[in-house]
Amino acid sequence: MSADLRIDPSRLLDRIRSLGQVGALPGGGVCRLALTEEDRRGRDRVRGWMEELGLEVGVDPLGNVVGVWPGTEPGPPVMTGSHIDTVRTGGLYDGNLGVLAGLEVIETLQRAGVRPRRSLAVGFFTNEEGARFAPDMMGSLYFVGALPLRQARAVVGIDGKSVGEALDAIGYAGASPPMAVHAFVELHVEQGPVLEEEGVTIGVVEGVQGISWTEFTVTGISNHAGTTPLRLRHDAGWVAGSLIQYVRTMALELGGDQIATVGSLRLHPDLVNVIPNRAVFTVDLRNTDEAVLQQAEARLHAHVRALAEQEGVTVAHRSLARFEPVSFEPELVDRIEATALRLGHTTRRMPSGAGHDAQMLARICPAAMIFVPSVRGISHNVAEHTDPADLEAGANVLLQVMCELAT
Amino acid sequence: MSADLRIDPSRLLDRIRSLGQVGALPGGGVCRLALTEEDRRGRDRVRGWMEELGLEVGVDPLGNVVGVWPGTEPGPPVMTGSHIDTVRTGGLYDGNLGVLAGLEVIETLQRAGVRPRRSLAVGFFTNEEGARFAPDMMGSLYFVGALPLRQARAVVGIDGKSVGEALDAIGYAGASPPMAVHAFVELHVEQGPVLEEEGVTIGVVEGVQGISWTEFTVTGISNHAGTTPLRLRHDAGWVAGSLIQYVRTMALELGGDQIATVGSLRLHPDLVNVIPNRAVFTVDLRNTDEAVLQQAEARLHAHVRALAEQEGVTVAHRSLARFEPVSFEPELVDRIEATALRLGHTTRRMPSGAGHDAQMLARICPAAMIFVPSVRGISHNVAEHTDPADLEAGANVLLQVMCELAT
Repeated sequence: MSADLRIDPSRLLDRIRSLGQVGALPGGGVCRLALTEEDRRGRDRVRGWMEELGLEVGVDPLGNVVGVWPGTEPGPPVMTGSHIDTVRTGGLYDGNLGVLAGLEVIETLQRAGVRPRRSLAVGFFTNEEGARFAPDMMGSLYFVGALPLRQARAVVGIDGKSVGEALDAIGYAGASPPMAVHAFVELHVEQGPVLEEEGVTIGVVEGVQGISWTEFTVTGISNHAGTTPLRLRHDAGWVAGSLIQYVRTMALELGGDQIATVGSLRLHPDLVNVIPNRAVFTVDLRNTDEAVLQQAEARLHAHVRALAEQEGVTVAHRSLARFEPVSFEPELVDRIEATALRLGHTTRRMPSGAGHDAQMLARICPAAMIFVPSVRGISHNVAEHTDPADLEAGANVLLQVMCELAT
Repeated sequence: MSADLRIDPSRLLDRIRSLGQVGALPGGGVCRLALTEEDRRGRDRVRGWMEELGLEVGVDPLGNVVGVWPGTEPGPPVMTGSHIDTVRTGGLYDGNLGVLAGLEVIETLQRAGVRPRRSLAVGFFTNEEGARFAPDMMGSLYFVGALPLRQARAVVGIDGKSVGEALDAIGYAGASPPMAVHAFVELHVEQGPVLEEEGVTIGVVEGVQGISWTEFTVTGISNHAGTTPLRLRHDAGWVAGSLIQYVRTMALELGGDQIATVGSLRLHPDLVNVIPNRAVFTVDLRNTDEAVLQQAEARLHAHVRALAEQEGVTVAHRSLARFEPVSFEPELVDRIEATALRLGHTTRRMPSGAGHDAQMLARICPAAMIFVPSVRGISHNVAEHTDPADLEAGANVLLQVMCELAT
């Protein structure tokens, strides 16, 4: 019975390490920016494995690669997958785990002689990271029909080359037509510290947080730090510092999943003895609840206005990014949780703080995600690590969920 | 009687404007960095005026220039003066006013046929600004015997040239020996907004604030802004923002003249969606009371330690500058105040927030300063301005105080 099947952790690890050799950085980690020569070599290797497993491999016009193992009945496949492009100094697991665990699921079933009713598919999507071309999750956005090909190909990357040129150069502009998907489940490393912190093995991802990025520019008046009394100052730096404090306080007050970060701040003229006349800083707000996210934005702007009035400064703002939260399919989320518990793992329902291809797939089919712990929450970093036992646990949950969905 | 004498404001203004032509910047303001060719031309012009007034002009080995008008009796002179070097984008008044008002005082007395008992002297000191060579107030520090000549000449400036080379190049390394001074009074623009804000004409300067500059480096942990809950963060940027708030609160609690400024702050990696792992910022503390200044330093460091513990970050610090406050001679301060009131001006006792040559002269003789308002507190800026009526008022107070001291 497929309910007793387990993946082979050493085979999974071997593939992860093998793919990690492509674009390996001296000292560890990997660099396979989207549609580079390193990405091509990574794609070739994974496509080779797909072919070894007898999958029907298709490449679509934006370079998304999907391998399908036909089921005993026709119809859209139960799909898994992720991405194999990386940031400039990436780790071995981000994206790669989801793709290679998909291959492992299929190989496990094949070796056990279990052929499901529905087809199974594993794919990797082009330019999920957005580290070379904006926006991120480009391939999956195209895959679900929400990004025109012409527009995607015209995007120019950080090196001046367009997506179209880069795709053609590595020979990954294919001809596969749009495909229907029965359901999509993505296994991914958490990229955050929560699971490790709480000693939980399986994160049951209920959705992806909405994101609101705003850049604020505070304009005050520069003056001599030694001769200008506090009460006569219009200190742009103080206003920025005060807002750094405020956003955390506000997030804690809103509670739930609300988080807030000031990651970037620049003062001008940035001299020890001159009161700053300009502060430019960003506020990153995230929440799984769109209503609360809007409340956070409204509170922040109201506070900024009041503070500007109080301090006699002006504040301009512009939106750098705004995405609404994505909710995964509740039945599928329940199924992942039940399966993980049946396999004896600890679980935790959680949102994804980062964006993932699954949130795009959620536009065309039931979708959900499985998280496994990231050691110290480190990701987008050569030091990214997940314990092999956790990789195995996540892949076994994926195996069981896909089997259930396919039968 | 000399008590009824008044300076000629148009003659003073003409000299200010004439000196402002030397190194004039297009669109206003002036650039005469210390010991440059522009400085030499400015020095030549002022020395020419000294010679026209029949002063005995001496140049010492560090280029300090003093013109003495001998009194009816021998003995050390009553001295005034300041500096004529400027920052890169300076105004017409900073320093220059004090030197040219000194010439105007002497010319007024000469034209009135009043020759005081004591000699009068007017000087300008080398490199007060410190904009080319560190430290600032270098000339007056040498003048009072607190800086060895060899050490001063060896200082290398921002352009790679040493003080000695630059002095020799403009021909201003003289041979005048150290001189005794009976008393020193410096007229200067406030360089801050207090007098204008309060509608007061004459600032009676009681002393110069002590200065404490510290650079703090906060080291936390970078992580994904979307996946790291607030409670698991070690956010160096938040710690810096919190300290920006704290220093103002602390200064207000300490009260009196305590001021505090965070003028420089840099985050790393300074990205919208990454929690900063490093924040480097400066704290500028000033007070006229050394005991309170030490209390401010102690409180700041204690707060930093507590905050570091609370947030799980480390904080290193280094001192960038530390000067104790300077108190001017109380009798001389009283005399300035009484004279200004007698002349019908509003007065305000105040500390100087910036450093001035008078604080060095205070080491060898009774010294004090007279401030006149700076429009909007702007200084070290081409927009620096002081109303002509205020220039006149300040110069008349200087005239009367010097007369009293010299008779």
